[in-house]
Amino acid sequence: MEIAIMGYGVVGSGVAQVISMNNQSIAEKSLQDSLNVKYILDLRDFPGDENESKLVKDFNIILNDPDVKIVVEAMGGLNPAFDFVSACLKAGKSVATSNKELVAAKGDILLKLAEENNANFMFEASVGGGIPVIRPLAQCLAANRVDEVAGILNGTTNFILTMMIYNSMSFEDALRLAQDNGYAEKDPTADIEGFDACRKICILASLAFGKHVFPESVYTEGITKITLEDVEYARSWGGVIKLLGRAKRIGDKISAMVSPAFVRNESILSGVNDVFNAVFVRGNAVGDCAFYGRGAGKLATASAVVADVIDCARHIEKRKVFGWGDAIENYVVDHKTVEASYYVRARGDKVFALRRAEEIFGDISILARENAPEDEFAFVTPVKAEGELDAMLAKLEDIEILSKIRVENY
Amino acid sequence: MEIAIMGYGVVGSGVAQVISMNNQSIAEKSLQDSLNVKYILDLRDFPGDENESKLVKDFNIILNDPDVKIVVEAMGGLNPAFDFVSACLKAGKSVATSNKELVAAKGDILLKLAEENNANFMFEASVGGGIPVIRPLAQCLAANRVDEVAGILNGTTNFILTMMIYNSMSFEDALRLAQDNGYAEKDPTADIEGFDACRKICILASLAFGKHVFPESVYTEGITKITLEDVEYARSWGGVIKLLGRAKRIGDKISAMVSPAFVRNESILSGVNDVFNAVFVRGNAVGDCAFYGRGAGKLATASAVVADVIDCARHIEKRKVFGWGDAIENYVVDHKTVEASYYVRARGDKVFALRRAEEIFGDISILARENAPEDEFAFVTPVKAEGELDAMLAKLEDIEILSKIRVENY
Repeated sequence: MEIAIMGYGVVGSGVAQVISMNNQSIAEKSLQDSLNVKYILDLRDFPGDENESKLVKDFNIILNDPDVKIVVEAMGGLNPAFDFVSACLKAGKSVATSNKELVAAKGDILLKLAEENNANFMFEASVGGGIPVIRPLAQCLAANRVDEVAGILNGTTNFILTMMIYNSMSFEDALRLAQDNGYAEKDPTADIEGFDACRKICILASLAFGKHVFPESVYTEGITKITLEDVEYARSWGGVIKLLGRAKRIGDKISAMVSPAFVRNESILSGVNDVFNAVFVRGNAVGDCAFYGRGAGKLATASAVVADVIDCARHIEKRKVFGWGDAIENYVVDHKTVEASYYVRARGDKVFALRRAEEIFGDISILARENAPEDEFAFVTPVKAEGELDAMLAKLEDIEILSKIRVENY
Repeated sequence: MEIAIMGYGVVGSGVAQVISMNNQSIAEKSLQDSLNVKYILDLRDFPGDENESKLVKDFNIILNDPDVKIVVEAMGGLNPAFDFVSACLKAGKSVATSNKELVAAKGDILLKLAEENNANFMFEASVGGGIPVIRPLAQCLAANRVDEVAGILNGTTNFILTMMIYNSMSFEDALRLAQDNGYAEKDPTADIEGFDACRKICILASLAFGKHVFPESVYTEGITKITLEDVEYARSWGGVIKLLGRAKRIGDKISAMVSPAFVRNESILSGVNDVFNAVFVRGNAVGDCAFYGRGAGKLATASAVVADVIDCARHIEKRKVFGWGDAIENYVVDHKTVEASYYVRARGDKVFALRRAEEIFGDISILARENAPEDEFAFVTPVKAEGELDAMLAKLEDIEILSKIRVENY
């Protein structure tokens, strides 16, 4: 069977490498005599590259070659990826992609196109890199009503937080180290502001709950405001700060958001460090389970793409069903209505403010850290909707709120 | 579509419950108008049970009903499960089982029978209860050459070790608590001696490496000899003791064993506590990944069985391929030849013995614990084959070896 790869960057070249490295077993598992990369689409030249002879610059060569049954999309971005993938599906070719932006924005449309043309559109690599996530969620947990999905979905920010927690590095130093190690891009905005995690939780939520969830509808907060003081308070509370994407069934709607969170040391998510990712699923039969691994990296991501290629090859003219339906309006509830406990750090007249906080909130648990300035204090509130919490915090006169972080119970 | 359940114990009744609880979505995902439990086979009576009308005592009723396309085997044990499952497969019915004893002993034969009769034999629930393990290993990681699988595969022993580590409970007290909580059976032998974990690592190894691995060929050691002293030394070393099943590719052969192991605090396996299980996979493309969840329990296990039922329903007359081949002789190497670092605890003339140990082993790292008796000492050796290690330990004259535990690098 012949396949084509669009985009010869990190993931695309990784796909070519994995197919060559494990070729025989991949072909066997694909139920094919052979699995061959016929074309690689890239506008750049790669003189001397081992795959130089396969490189093409014109997408139509791939589109119009009936021998190419499966196309890997590893270009990234929405355009022209969306047009190219749409054209492939319309031509009855199956597509495997690692492009989370594309899946989060257009998953419903592309899955429908695949269905109409008896082809498959697969995207295991779009969340969690090499970690098996999509298939376990769609198939292994198929007997469950999934009530909640959550995860550490971005390796860059998890690396930064790990350095802050275990090496007491400042956010800025940890970010610089991540950049030096190649974990963060020169412009790290998509990672540190949570946009990357947002796309991934959209994909997970769409799969878990069955309606397309758009990134625009998901409240997203990154880690740029997290300080070492917050990290210290989290430790004294008995946990760590993690950037979590999470979505939860609430009646016919869902909540969905990306933000830092306090996570207890007992939680399996607290032990997920460095660039590792983890996806947590809570089902009404299975209870809690989680998938863990390297969320990025050339071969890890490529291995997930190639697993999809194998599945496409085995299911030519037979469709995989994901149960990912159209979007509906007002599906994601306002995050201000979602209930949680909150960690609050503030500055002001400590004794007076804490007494006042107890009056307002009832039970609070006061946290301490070494060497805290006299006028700093921190506490964890009872469970409140964030809107209600904000109104209550406003009643604490003459204080400055320095941090406010959700407490999660995974 | 009609299905039958054989065995109305914990798992069997859980399967009936999950199918009833999530019936509509399960039918949809099965691509069926409905999914109905027609018969439940059990020799016992269940007067007043909601499924009383479905109970039958004669297996032939199920076997001879052409409407029954899928049979759930939840009886446990080898007999008559093996005969019944064989007969179902020969009749072209697909079978989903949670019976690890059956899969570990007869997986190759039953998969072949399924193949010959164009049916499916599925066993997601046989390892890790509700945790998706089998499918991720067989499909999601299909692009990899799997080099290593390992895991915390038994919830009872993990609960006991957790109580020893975090509550300083003795083995005997922790076992009693596990029994009181219903986590351990009255006769806990299969759990605490590692036999249960052994069956599961056999299933994982057979899948990961492609040849049937029999429990008899796997060195198996339980946790009955672990003491609180060992737990203390592990803590001072920077880790915990876990009962691990593991198998590793070594050329054309594999190593496979079940035994306690020292695991570093940094390892994701160290954070898997209580009755939770985790399966760790190391692939040549994906790197390290792991699956985590409740390894037992009625609904968790049932959820995995029903996921298999859904998959069988979708693949009627189409086969899933696991790549699980026949056994070959001498496939599992002698565990005495497998290399590792070892933790050793002993009694004797401490100063003299440690000096002698340094002469014999070269580099050792000496461990300490509070309140240790004067004549007790402990150290971690360099990497050695266990046979070689034993010969070297024999050279330490006049000491008594109290514990010897492998150190793992997951």
